Amino acid sequence: MNSYPKSFSNLIEIFTKLPGVGPKTAERYAFHLLRFNNKDLETFGNVVANFKKKIKICKKCFTLSDADLCHICSDTKRDQKLLCVVENIADMYSIEKSGTYKGLYHILQGVLSPIDGIVPENIRISELVQKIKKEDIEEVIIATSTSLEGDMTASYIANIIKNNSIKISRIASGIPVGSNLKYMDKMTIKQSIDDRKQF
Amino acid sequence: MNSYPKSFSNLIEIFTKLPGVGPKTAERYAFHLLRFNNKDLETFGNVVANFKKKIKICKKCFTLSDADLCHICSDTKRDQKLLCVVENIADMYSIEKSGTYKGLYHILQGVLSPIDGIVPENIRISELVQKIKKEDIEEVIIATSTSLEGDMTASYIANIIKNNSIKISRIASGIPVGSNLKYMDKMTIKQSIDDRKQF
Repeated sequence: MNSYPKSFSNLIEIFTKLPGVGPKTAERYAFHLLRFNNKDLETFGNVVANFKKKIKICKKCFTLSDADLCHICSDTKRDQKLLCVVENIADMYSIEKSGTYKGLYHILQGVLSPIDGIVPENIRISELVQKIKKEDIEEVIIATSTSLEGDMTASYIANIIKNNSIKISRIASGIPVGSNLKYMDKMTIKQSIDDRKQF
Repeated sequence: MNSYPKSFSNLIEIFTKLPGVGPKTAERYAFHLLRFNNKDLETFGNVVANFKKKIKICKKCFTLSDADLCHICSDTKRDQKLLCVVENIADMYSIEKSGTYKGLYHILQGVLSPIDGIVPENIRISELVQKIKKEDIEEVIIATSTSLEGDMTASYIANIIKNNSIKISRIASGIPVGSNLKYMDKMTIKQSIDDRKQF
C-alpha cells in the first residue's frame, strides 16, 4: 500500500536496528536524511562504516582506545593503587563523567550469567586476578551493576581475590540522590535501610 | 575528562544530527553499534551513504520514486480526476497509510511562509496550476497542515485555481478521533463547533 522506493525502505529498516528505534522513529530519521546532500550522507555513512576499524582495545583495562594503552592507563597522575572493576565500557565512561574517581579501571566485558551460559572463563576475571598479583594494587572497588547478575559477579570476584592482602569494596546501593521514596521498589528501600549510615 | 577515541566521538556526533537525538541517545546508539561486526557496519554505512543516489523524484507528483513516474501516478486504477495537494512527501505517505484515498497527489515541497521568505515561486504552485489546466481533474483536495502557514497556502491555492470549473475542498479540521475534549486547545474546539455537522 505505501511502497517507498527500495533504497528508502532499506534506510528505514537499517535505522530500526538502533536500540529503541521502531518503524515510526526510523521513518522520521530517514525523512530527515532526505534533506542532506550526497556529500554529507557519504560522511555519515563512512563514519558508521569505519569507526570501529580505528578503535583499539586498551591492553591493560580493555576499554576503547586510540593507542595500545588508553588515556587513563597511561595517565601517571591517576592513583595506580586503586582499581575499579566495571561490567562494560559504557559503565566506565559513566563513572568518568561523574568526575569523582581518580584510580584505574578493569573492564570485565560482561557479567556472570549461568542462565545465558556466561561462566567466569567468558569474562575477563583471570586477567583481573593476574593484574592484582602483578601490580601494586591496594583497593579493588567492584562496580558491577546492582542486578542479580552484577551482585553475583561481585561476590564471585570478591571471593577469588580475597586471599590477597588488598581491600575489596562494593559500590553502595540505595535510593538515588534526589529521588522520592514513593517511587522506589521494595528491594531498594530494604537495601537503603539495611545499609543505613550513622550521623 | 571523558575522552572517547576520536572515531567513536565522531560517531556520537554524527548521530546527534538525527532529529530528536541528543548526546545521551547518540552515545547509546554508538555503544550499540560497537557490537556490530565490520561487515554489518559497512552495510549500514553504505545504505546511508548511497540511498539518495538511487531515489528519483516523480516527474508528475514530485514524490520519491524508483522510476520516472511513481507507483501512484502510474497506477491506472487510481482516480485520475481527484488530486490531493500536500506539503511534503511524509504527509503523502501518511494519507496513503490511512488507506482511504484513491486519487493522485501533488507535493508542494513546502508551504508559503513570508517570514521565512518562502513565496509562491519557491514551492510547486505553478506546476499545480499547469497540471490542473492540462489534465482532466474534477476535484482538488487541499491537505496542507492546519497551521497558520498551511491555511494560508491553502487559501492562496484555492484563490488562483478557482477560475477553473473544478471543485476545491479543504480537509476537515476538528477534534482528532478518540481524543478527549479537555486536552484540546481553544482553536481546535472553536473549529469543531463552527464546522459542526448535522445528524
